[in-house]
Amino acid sequence: VTAAAAAEAMRWENGVLVLLDQTKLPTQIEYIRCDSFRRVAEAIKRLEVRGAPAIGIAAAYAMALAAQEAALFAKTKNTKDNDAFWDLLYSAARELKSTRPTAVNLSWAVTKMLTAAETAKAAATPDGLAALLKKIADDLAATDREVNKKIAANGAAIFRNRKMSFLTHCNTGALATAAVGTALGVIVAVGEQGNVVNVFVDETRPLLQGARLTAWELSQLGIPVTLITDNTAGWVMKQGKVDAVIVGADRIAQNGDTANKIGTYSLAVLAMEHKIPFYVAAPVSTFDFSLPSGGSIPIEERAPEEVTVLNGKRIAPCDVRVYNPAFDITPHDLITGIITEEGVLSPPFSAAIAQLKRKSEA
Amino acid sequence: VTAAAAAEAMRWENGVLVLLDQTKLPTQIEYIRCDSFRRVAEAIKRLEVRGAPAIGIAAAYAMALAAQEAALFAKTKNTKDNDAFWDLLYSAARELKSTRPTAVNLSWAVTKMLTAAETAKAAATPDGLAALLKKIADDLAATDREVNKKIAANGAAIFRNRKMSFLTHCNTGALATAAVGTALGVIVAVGEQGNVVNVFVDETRPLLQGARLTAWELSQLGIPVTLITDNTAGWVMKQGKVDAVIVGADRIAQNGDTANKIGTYSLAVLAMEHKIPFYVAAPVSTFDFSLPSGGSIPIEERAPEEVTVLNGKRIAPCDVRVYNPAFDITPHDLITGIITEEGVLSPPFSAAIAQLKRKSEA
Repeated sequence: VTAAAAAEAMRWENGVLVLLDQTKLPTQIEYIRCDSFRRVAEAIKRLEVRGAPAIGIAAAYAMALAAQEAALFAKTKNTKDNDAFWDLLYSAARELKSTRPTAVNLSWAVTKMLTAAETAKAAATPDGLAALLKKIADDLAATDREVNKKIAANGAAIFRNRKMSFLTHCNTGALATAAVGTALGVIVAVGEQGNVVNVFVDETRPLLQGARLTAWELSQLGIPVTLITDNTAGWVMKQGKVDAVIVGADRIAQNGDTANKIGTYSLAVLAMEHKIPFYVAAPVSTFDFSLPSGGSIPIEERAPEEVTVLNGKRIAPCDVRVYNPAFDITPHDLITGIITEEGVLSPPFSAAIAQLKRKSEA
Repeated sequence: VTAAAAAEAMRWENGVLVLLDQTKLPTQIEYIRCDSFRRVAEAIKRLEVRGAPAIGIAAAYAMALAAQEAALFAKTKNTKDNDAFWDLLYSAARELKSTRPTAVNLSWAVTKMLTAAETAKAAATPDGLAALLKKIADDLAATDREVNKKIAANGAAIFRNRKMSFLTHCNTGALATAAVGTALGVIVAVGEQGNVVNVFVDETRPLLQGARLTAWELSQLGIPVTLITDNTAGWVMKQGKVDAVIVGADRIAQNGDTANKIGTYSLAVLAMEHKIPFYVAAPVSTFDFSLPSGGSIPIEERAPEEVTVLNGKRIAPCDVRVYNPAFDITPHDLITGIITEEGVLSPPFSAAIAQLKRKSEA
């Protein structure tokens, strides 16, 4: 079992970002060739690429594509000042940030790219800036791979020398990141030590990322997996079949409140009821150091058709009202620990996260 | 809004039991004409008819069909003793009881039919017994209609003069019974008083009885409904959007432990966490007075394909292991009250249920 065996969510190929279309998995393996930032923005909206770290990296590459496009456009203008270049780059940044509101990695990555371009503004040509942004996107992807490894190692250390049955939700594996994943990366690392007895995977309605992606990734890696419907999670906990729950995160506030895929909050309550440790695994880029608590995290609501239509077929009455939030907020007091590349944070999270903030600003 | 507007799960027509095929709803309205007990057994197994009270009544009519078939068969034998008749009737009873293990109404109804036949044995011909069993099945259906009305009235009394937002799971409406339903009957009765603000309906994976049947029934009746995925239930409770949870039951033990559709247990834990009252609505025929607690209720596990295939299309990897229990057990201490035709039982349930038992034996 190695990270190399894991699926790859994206790769850069001759000036084009190639995305694995995650909406088609696991029945079809199809790739989308994105030669414009707008196509990447579209892919993020449609969830063809998803997972907080992965959409951060995809957005970084989208900014590199935007810089390519802007440099080409600036040339056609044939003027000395580069206003056309910068106009397009800023508008791309705005458009990319607006694609999905909850995961903070997205705006974090776009801001990082813009700042880098602005810093080099005086010294570089548009072509030079485009090349620079491509390099920085590569660096972000490489950093994410390193971060993934550290999260996996830090998480695996918690469960060292214990036979573990995990429960996880949604997809936090290779497809959601640039490498082995966050929560799933931890599980895979425990698996590499031969200590994973079973992984209960919630199918994760409405888009079934657990059934389609996580169950598929674990099967590919040869780790024992049992697929369950979301509403079976409490019952398997009740039967003593789960030793720990590990999930990813889309945004973590200063106090440890965590936005993650809808259903995570219920799992946290159920884990607490059954005295099962509940871990969040996420890179430092998932922390929003500007938010005091989860109450101010915007929750994306998605189209009713995600719930009422499956595989193009209606599975509910036409006229029914639907509430389809993509995420929920898990209060910090339901969380046992937050596994990051900088170590495992323990309660009280406020202090640990303040320290993380100082470190990230240093 | 009247019970007449509700869908009808089954009707008897010239010696044939006509079932509404609930696996096709709401996109197709198709009927299955059952002229043999075996076709009814098949329909119960395939969930073409489902819901604890409804499968009890369907099984009663199946026994009437078996008696018709047996009477016909006995004639071809042309002997004086009626062994052929009784052999077929007993074997039908065994076969029907084995179709689904969890709901107790099924074996309750079959036993009632057999006992009635045995009581009339000496006095009646096979044809006479067949006519008798048809009449008793009619009586059971009529009783269920009366019982439904009383459950609805007893439940609605709990919420009198209050604007209510309910959350419910699976389907406990007209399709699951012979009339307005159990849990859904209560909600409809509160709706008739103009006091239902909203009903959150869990879609209820894997077979989507909530999305396909409950959302459809409520829409038809003009009661405000909001469809959610199962894993959204905790989050709507957290946001204070739910005043009470009401569910049905497939079997209730002496101490009040309740078997019901998978996911019910999680809802009960979540309701307790949010201090939301959690009610079970069920007829006395759902109580298993022989079982001390829920631990001895058999839990039906169904085929993995219910989870991995939808509308004939695979939605999970081929080789993945699946755990697909159709039911779970909610411990009595998570239940606020049990709404029956004999009144609303309150904790401690053991005493209330013992009294119910004495009454039902009287």
